[in-house]
Amino acid sequence: MTRVAILGTGQTCTALSVPLADNGHDVRLVGTHLDREIIDSIKASSVHPDLDEQLPMSVTAYQLEEAPEAFAGAEIVLSGVNSFGVRWAGERLAGLLPDRALVIAIAKGLEAAADGELRILTDVLRESWSGSQRDRHSVSAITGPMIASELAARRETCVVFAGRDQAALDYLASTFGTDAYRVWTSTDLVGCEVCAALKNCYALGVGLAEGVLQARGGSDRPDRMHNYEAALFAQGAAEMRQMVAVLGGDSETAGWLPGVGDMYVTSTGGRSVRVGRLLGGGARFEEASERLGHPTLEGAAAIREIGGALPKLVRRGMVSPEDFPLLRHLYEVIELDVPVDVPWSSFFGGEPGHRRTTAHASSD
Amino acid sequence: MTRVAILGTGQTCTALSVPLADNGHDVRLVGTHLDREIIDSIKASSVHPDLDEQLPMSVTAYQLEEAPEAFAGAEIVLSGVNSFGVRWAGERLAGLLPDRALVIAIAKGLEAAADGELRILTDVLRESWSGSQRDRHSVSAITGPMIASELAARRETCVVFAGRDQAALDYLASTFGTDAYRVWTSTDLVGCEVCAALKNCYALGVGLAEGVLQARGGSDRPDRMHNYEAALFAQGAAEMRQMVAVLGGDSETAGWLPGVGDMYVTSTGGRSVRVGRLLGGGARFEEASERLGHPTLEGAAAIREIGGALPKLVRRGMVSPEDFPLLRHLYEVIELDVPVDVPWSSFFGGEPGHRRTTAHASSD
Repeated sequence: MTRVAILGTGQTCTALSVPLADNGHDVRLVGTHLDREIIDSIKASSVHPDLDEQLPMSVTAYQLEEAPEAFAGAEIVLSGVNSFGVRWAGERLAGLLPDRALVIAIAKGLEAAADGELRILTDVLRESWSGSQRDRHSVSAITGPMIASELAARRETCVVFAGRDQAALDYLASTFGTDAYRVWTSTDLVGCEVCAALKNCYALGVGLAEGVLQARGGSDRPDRMHNYEAALFAQGAAEMRQMVAVLGGDSETAGWLPGVGDMYVTSTGGRSVRVGRLLGGGARFEEASERLGHPTLEGAAAIREIGGALPKLVRRGMVSPEDFPLLRHLYEVIELDVPVDVPWSSFFGGEPGHRRTTAHASSD
Repeated sequence: MTRVAILGTGQTCTALSVPLADNGHDVRLVGTHLDREIIDSIKASSVHPDLDEQLPMSVTAYQLEEAPEAFAGAEIVLSGVNSFGVRWAGERLAGLLPDRALVIAIAKGLEAAADGELRILTDVLRESWSGSQRDRHSVSAITGPMIASELAARRETCVVFAGRDQAALDYLASTFGTDAYRVWTSTDLVGCEVCAALKNCYALGVGLAEGVLQARGGSDRPDRMHNYEAALFAQGAAEMRQMVAVLGGDSETAGWLPGVGDMYVTSTGGRSVRVGRLLGGGARFEEASERLGHPTLEGAAAIREIGGALPKLVRRGMVSPEDFPLLRHLYEVIELDVPVDVPWSSFFGGEPGHRRTTAHASSD
């Protein structure tokens, strides 16, 4: 039996308590200051208000002020806070980490420095840690297609634990893995984290299609624009592959669960697709966000962060100005309120006959 | 104005007459012996019974016995017959091909020789041609995500024309390409053709998920098995990449429109997904085919052809027995009536902890 402390009670990290409890581990869910009611609910009835499944009775819940009790003796610590709370989580964990705990995190995103350098969030998490904490605790990440409700319902889910320490990954994989929750490992932490961030961007891109169709006056038969979606998906896959290579990862990582697998599941629905649909229909980003009730939009945030860094990476000679045309257009749409006008002719290295001209120069 | 003769009036090749006519070309649609009523309908009203859009008035239709008139002076010939009719089409074209015509084909599949060697259909098409015909006419192929009804409705569609002759590809691309129908080119004919065949196989695989869920007693909430589908999609993408390399293509081809792009669109619906759903629900292949009215199932045919060749490729040392676990299982399900039992532990090079054992040995 392994003691696992989880910081955060979002759907994904809460659902991860299911395979852990199924394996007989001692799982301790610690809410953030935003999670008081969720923790109250789990304490009272083992039910997370946003997950339909009842959690295993062995999962115990703690309010944030009870965190020291929950973390005492934990052998594995899971940072379940999303990309917006990574710094906050790192600071909390600095005061809570047991000496020999393995750390694994689920936040998806990249953070741009002033010079455009893009950092993976597992590194951002460690920023406030002491030197000896950084030496003792490598941070691994969970990537791959993982809809929380399906995981909680014990439907087959295949994921990749990524990190720099293979022995730690093996131990984590054997702790979390069940017949329903199947875990592969990868030491391409950078590649996996880049894919995890970008799949949200490109799922938002795929979402544009339905909105564009509606804006054109409806969707009789054929009722979708699957070809349009598939072209966006394919360009997203190609750009993901290239960005992994630019940032020093293994481009092969984009070809399986962390890349196209996760992008596939994210493109079938969820918040990024919904906001993409509204943008495709002509809404400005702020309108779209408001219509959805200002939800957490990791995809849009990643587009701002990575898209904003691209010109700096161009100046540093790391990418060419023609690279990443879909990501650049998504940035224009979200950050600069440019109307959606997919730059098809600059996709896939440039359409024959358009290769010499700057495609859609007017909207660049 | 270019004269283009099309043999076959399936939805896809008929829809291709739309961008050609939009570009002002002289398009001649020739029905096979199975297409008499379709040709009558187009002659009478420019309507293809299975496509909602009216065809441009400039498209002319011919019965098979009128083919010599249609093909006279054609500069481009499109073989629009599916994989089951490739030999038949090759024989017809042998008697019809104008001397300098460029040929392009849309059939998707691979053909296995007795020793397991897998041949692309553009080569099978040329089999009955004379030596000088083969010298004069290279055959290119259209690959990528292309739902015919959307193409006919002039919704944006991005495809790849693949062939061995770049000058021919450039001419074909400029003849077919419009603002809605956007054409890239690739000289990796083998890679593109392998992807075109395999995406139907793996889309059938993705279809299993919903059937499995139904067989387990329904789909309340969560209402799908997206994680399950995404894992199948990712394994399909990885196997596609590997098969392209095994057969001498460029594995990068699997990463964009011909590979994951086309697999994405094919996995969202269509016959392969529907038959997969029935198989996942427990039907034997013959039952599933009967319930769907014995439609043309290129995906199932490709699984039989390629899956049947795999043991021979293993004996020839071209692939290892552990390779292509999803394709092998699909073959077992379709050809040997083995119940669906996805061999997760053998996916992605083998799940940690299962690498030394033969996964699911009982169903091999």
